[in-house]
Amino acid sequence: MTAQTDHSSAKPAPGAKGHTLLSVDAMGGDEGPAAIVAGCSLSAKINPHISFVLHGDKAQLDALVAKHAPLRGRCEIRHAADVVSMEDKPSHVVRTGQSTSMWSAIESVRTGEAAVAVSCGNTGALMAMSMIRLRKLPGVNRPAIAVLYPSANPQGFNVMLDVGADIRADADDLLRFALMGVSYARNGMDIPHPRVGLLNVGTEEHKGRSELKEAYELIRAHEDTAGYVFVGFVEGGDISGDSADVIVTDGFTGNIAIKTGEGTASLIGVRLREAFKYSLLSRLASLLAYTSLMRLRTKIDPRRVNGGVFLGLNGTVVKSHGSADATGISAAIKLAAQLADNQFNDKLAARVAATLTKEEDAT
Amino acid sequence: MTAQTDHSSAKPAPGAKGHTLLSVDAMGGDEGPAAIVAGCSLSAKINPHISFVLHGDKAQLDALVAKHAPLRGRCEIRHAADVVSMEDKPSHVVRTGQSTSMWSAIESVRTGEAAVAVSCGNTGALMAMSMIRLRKLPGVNRPAIAVLYPSANPQGFNVMLDVGADIRADADDLLRFALMGVSYARNGMDIPHPRVGLLNVGTEEHKGRSELKEAYELIRAHEDTAGYVFVGFVEGGDISGDSADVIVTDGFTGNIAIKTGEGTASLIGVRLREAFKYSLLSRLASLLAYTSLMRLRTKIDPRRVNGGVFLGLNGTVVKSHGSADATGISAAIKLAAQLADNQFNDKLAARVAATLTKEEDAT
Repeated sequence: MTAQTDHSSAKPAPGAKGHTLLSVDAMGGDEGPAAIVAGCSLSAKINPHISFVLHGDKAQLDALVAKHAPLRGRCEIRHAADVVSMEDKPSHVVRTGQSTSMWSAIESVRTGEAAVAVSCGNTGALMAMSMIRLRKLPGVNRPAIAVLYPSANPQGFNVMLDVGADIRADADDLLRFALMGVSYARNGMDIPHPRVGLLNVGTEEHKGRSELKEAYELIRAHEDTAGYVFVGFVEGGDISGDSADVIVTDGFTGNIAIKTGEGTASLIGVRLREAFKYSLLSRLASLLAYTSLMRLRTKIDPRRVNGGVFLGLNGTVVKSHGSADATGISAAIKLAAQLADNQFNDKLAARVAATLTKEEDAT
Repeated sequence: MTAQTDHSSAKPAPGAKGHTLLSVDAMGGDEGPAAIVAGCSLSAKINPHISFVLHGDKAQLDALVAKHAPLRGRCEIRHAADVVSMEDKPSHVVRTGQSTSMWSAIESVRTGEAAVAVSCGNTGALMAMSMIRLRKLPGVNRPAIAVLYPSANPQGFNVMLDVGADIRADADDLLRFALMGVSYARNGMDIPHPRVGLLNVGTEEHKGRSELKEAYELIRAHEDTAGYVFVGFVEGGDISGDSADVIVTDGFTGNIAIKTGEGTASLIGVRLREAFKYSLLSRLASLLAYTSLMRLRTKIDPRRVNGGVFLGLNGTVVKSHGSADATGISAAIKLAAQLADNQFNDKLAARVAATLTKEEDAT
């Protein structure tokens, strides 16, 4: 069974001139469709230029959308009977998942109807489906997932990739990751000449695995033609530091690094709340410092930068955290809208193609 | 030239009954010998049962030791003319480093004079020298560096290994890391049946690299005989969580994970201080919350758990952070003294040998 389309609820044609149409998988995610619809509503309120195709159970979504005034006339609901669960194996889902909301959400990007798809669902399944349906860009062997990681940089974030599309990456893949990350930093963060660092266990050139030494030479060789600054090897501490704008690594290492960082930040948050609850004085202090602490929270809250972007495909997919609430979903949608408005994927494809052509010319 | 010995300054024979003699490389480290001697003094004040052999430049160390009353009569200074720098290649140092303070510090453990050696120097050089001079325990192919990582556990820390002894580890190595980590958790943290987790990019059994799937089976197979609880695969977020007491991984991944975590914690610290400085109200708040914030700092301060322990050698070596100040050095010395008092290395050797014998009996 394939997903059914219902156009009845969309009043002004989404995708009309001046509008950005986003495709949203409304069913995946630990918090359920209520949180996702609430996140869409938050975004719709702030950004009058976006509208949505929501994919999922029509009855549930109709009821939820009706509760949010900002979504009135800006949501098309496309029925999909099934949902990909967090336990489903990617290999299984790509064979049997045609009737799922995730499949339907990707389909909107494949047909060109929507510019970007957003999902909170199972990352492995979303990547597998995206690869099968959208296919890889010419010159890209392994797509990557890129995230923004809070850092001491002037812009407040580093781009890090791959954080989990694939557990392997050879030297050629790492070069592509560098090119794609540079394109993301340039278009998404307005850095004309991003600094690129290659993640390793030491900054000395003789250290690390052999594919890293090879990637080091490749990335250095493309520095001038691709317009970035290669700062060489960087270490785990540089992910949140100010020595690079783009951190390149394989998906195994990157995934463990960001989850370690998030876990550590969350433990510190718990301990900080405990500290403020400890005594009457410290409770009073937390009241006095409330505004400052909220400002801090905004700066380091992972929900504010929620959204891994799949790079290297014919179309952009934003993966939101499975546990994202409305604030988190809304951050992912904001990112999706920015990327759509910048025609990010076309620029990225052009960048990879241009560098590869020059490389082939040179050899 | 080999290190020269000078016994003249040691009044009561260190190593006498009831005393724990620690061997300290007094020259390695970014903060120089003054910080290391100050750290020894802090420890000596708290713990009347320890005494030191300090290795390094005799003239400098004599002058420094003279400034610290708690060290009077409890320090032997052993002259070593050279220092291993942070830039020295391990392969170079093991051939030419006989006259360095690091070599001399390890030598005290090799001869059995001191129970444990402590150094803030170049990790790669320290590991290479320790392997060459102390040699590996029977049954251990790759030694590992274990650290205590702040976590939501009742004991407040997880044991994590390897964090950088070697960039590779096969399934057999990962099993040995589990056994050594269990021994550390049991003897150093009083956990009779530690929970062991194997670090991966997902908790599902089908995920991850092939050596991890193989290690999964091996670690599970030894659960009963070695007296631990195998919780299966864990993710980056579990390093600071409460799902395991021992986190097993290869040295590449482990090194990047702990440095990412430390970097993130340090960025949050900077942002927190900024937040408290922001306004008059928030400055007042930070005064009121001072005691609570200091308590928090003690809990999450990496200096308080300073010290990676080299496991799998005939002798124990504690690697302190290169940038450790007196408080950090003193934490590393406290750990060294605990391990010496517990005859930790003998117990670890017995544990690995016993498990391997059972394994060989079974096959």
